Amino acid sequence: MTAPWITYRPELKVLDCTVRDGGLVNDHHFNDDFVRAVYQSCVEAGIDYMEIGYKNSEKLFPKGEFGPWKHCDEEDIRRVVGENDTSLKLAVMCDAGKSDWKTQVLRKDDSVLDMIRVAFYVHQVSEAVDMIHDAIEKGYEVSGNLMAVSTATETEVDQALEVLAQTPVHVLVVVDSFGSLYAEQVERLVKKYLEFGKATGKEVGMHAHNNQQLGFANTIEAIIHGANRVDASMAGLGRGAGNCPMELMIGFLRNPKFKIRPIYQVLQDYLLPLSREVEWGPLVQYNITGQLNEHPRDAIAARKGDARDDYVAFYDKLTSDV
Amino acid sequence: MTAPWITYRPELKVLDCTVRDGGLVNDHHFNDDFVRAVYQSCVEAGIDYMEIGYKNSEKLFPKGEFGPWKHCDEEDIRRVVGENDTSLKLAVMCDAGKSDWKTQVLRKDDSVLDMIRVAFYVHQVSEAVDMIHDAIEKGYEVSGNLMAVSTATETEVDQALEVLAQTPVHVLVVVDSFGSLYAEQVERLVKKYLEFGKATGKEVGMHAHNNQQLGFANTIEAIIHGANRVDASMAGLGRGAGNCPMELMIGFLRNPKFKIRPIYQVLQDYLLPLSREVEWGPLVQYNITGQLNEHPRDAIAARKGDARDDYVAFYDKLTSDV
Repeated sequence: MTAPWITYRPELKVLDCTVRDGGLVNDHHFNDDFVRAVYQSCVEAGIDYMEIGYKNSEKLFPKGEFGPWKHCDEEDIRRVVGENDTSLKLAVMCDAGKSDWKTQVLRKDDSVLDMIRVAFYVHQVSEAVDMIHDAIEKGYEVSGNLMAVSTATETEVDQALEVLAQTPVHVLVVVDSFGSLYAEQVERLVKKYLEFGKATGKEVGMHAHNNQQLGFANTIEAIIHGANRVDASMAGLGRGAGNCPMELMIGFLRNPKFKIRPIYQVLQDYLLPLSREVEWGPLVQYNITGQLNEHPRDAIAARKGDARDDYVAFYDKLTSDV
Repeated sequence: MTAPWITYRPELKVLDCTVRDGGLVNDHHFNDDFVRAVYQSCVEAGIDYMEIGYKNSEKLFPKGEFGPWKHCDEEDIRRVVGENDTSLKLAVMCDAGKSDWKTQVLRKDDSVLDMIRVAFYVHQVSEAVDMIHDAIEKGYEVSGNLMAVSTATETEVDQALEVLAQTPVHVLVVVDSFGSLYAEQVERLVKKYLEFGKATGKEVGMHAHNNQQLGFANTIEAIIHGANRVDASMAGLGRGAGNCPMELMIGFLRNPKFKIRPIYQVLQDYLLPLSREVEWGPLVQYNITGQLNEHPRDAIAARKGDARDDYVAFYDKLTSDV
C-alpha cells in the first residue's frame, strides 16, 4: 500500500491560463493591473508557466474591439513583465486558422516568451504541423493542443497523433473543450497520447473545462495516468463554465515549491471583483452542453438572455429533434 | 476496449438527500411546498430513494427553533407524500447520540418510511449497532453511515466495519463529511467497504461533499469501483459546500428509467430562488477546510461574517500554529 496523494512528481508542471482562456469572457480587455496581479501571483506561487494570451490575427480580431491579450504584442507583454527575470515561463496560444503566426511569432531571441501553444481542430492538423515547425525553428518550447477531442472519432485522433508524433513538438495536450469527458475517457486519452508520444519523449498535458464540475477531478485523473503538464486558472476563470481552478490544483499538489497563499490573495483582490462584472462557472446551461458534448456557445447566449433562469426551456431546445 | 460510460448497472440506486442534508443550511425550515416539489421531482425523475429529513431528538432540537424535517413526525411526512403510492422509497436519517430512535422510529407497518439511515462517528459504533438492530427489527431497510471517515485511522475504520459486517445492516456508506477525499482515497475506501460487506451481501454507498468540487467526481469514482448506492441533492444543496449535484449525477447515469427534465424544473422553480436566500456551494473557505480535512464549521462561520471575502485571513487563521 502506498499513499501517492501525499507525494509528488518533480517533473509535473502547472500552467496558468487565466488571462488567455479567461479573456474569452471579456474579449481580452484585461487592464495591465489585472494581468500583472495574476503574473505576480503565479511567480509567488511557484507556478511553472503563465499563458498570457493569444497571438491571433489583428485582421480577424481588430485592436480596440479586442484587448491587447488577444494579440500579445511584445511591447504589451513587456509592459507587464519587464524582462521577466523570474522562474515563471511565459506562453501564448496561436489558433490554427486565426493567427498570422509567421509574422506574429517573433524569434525567441527577440521575445520574452518561452513557449508557443498551437491550438487546432483535428481537420487543421496540417497547419498545426507547420506552426509547430515554425515555432520550434524560432527557438520555443512548443505544445500541440488538439481541441474538442471529444467530438473527433478515435480514428481521427489516432491519425492526428501519428502526424504530431513525427514532429519535434514537446507536449501533446488532451483538451476537453466542451467539458464533456468523464474520468474513464480521460484515462484512455491520456494513455493514448502517452503511447504516441513516448518514442520521442513527448510530455502529455491536460486542459479541462468545468461544465460538469469535473475540471479539477479530470485533471487529477490525467495526472494519475501520467500527464505531467496541467492547466488551471485562478478561480477557474475561463469561457463559459471555466477551467480547473488553480486554488484547487495547488491545494492538491504536494511539491513544496508551490505556495497557495498568493493564489488566495489574487482571488480576493482581483477575481472576486471580476466575478461581479462577468459570469463564468459550472452553471446549469453549461452542465447541459457538457452532458450533450456540445460547444458552449448556446449556453453562453442563454446566460446573457432574458430566459437565463429557464433551464427547462434551454434543455428542451437542445434536445428537440427539429 | 469497452465504453462503460454509455451502459449501466440496473442495481445502481440513487438517493436524494436535498431536504435532509440541505436542511442543515436552514435548520430544516423548509415549507411543505418545497418538500413536495422535491418529492414530485424525485418521483418523475425515477430516483430510487428520497431522504426527507432527520429523526433527531426534540429535546436537543426544539420544535419551532427547528423545522419539521429535523424530526420527521409521521403526520408531517404524510402531509406531503400521502401514502406515497409511488416507486420512490422514503428514508430518514437518525444520528447516534442525537436521536431518541427507540421511540422516534415507528414500526414500519405504522410508517410511510422505507429506510432508516444510521449516522455515527467511529467512536459511536456501538450505539450504531443497537440502532441498526432496532430499525431492522421494526422492518426497515437500513444503512450504516460512518461519518467523517477521512479523520478516522485505518485501524479504526477496519474495526468499525468488522463490527458492522456482523450486523444485518443492508448498506455501508462511505461518507466524506469534510469533502477532503481524492479519487485514489475513494477507490480504496469503496474497495475496503465492499470487502468487509461481501460475505453478507451488503451494498456499498457513497455520500460525497463538494468542498473541492469533487462531489460528483468522487461519486463517479465510487461507482466505477463498485458502489451501487449513491447520494446526491438538487443543485447540490447541503451544508457548507453541499453535496454531489443530482442534475450532474442523473446526466451521467445511463439507465433510461432516469429522467433529467423534472430535475431542471425543480432547480429553476425552487432551488434557484432558495439560492438567493441561503448560501451553499464550493466557495473558497470550503475549499480550504476540505484541503485541510477539517469540519466546515469555521468556514460556515466565516461566510456569515464581515470578513467573508478575506480568503487570506481565513487561510492564515486555519494554518497558524497558535
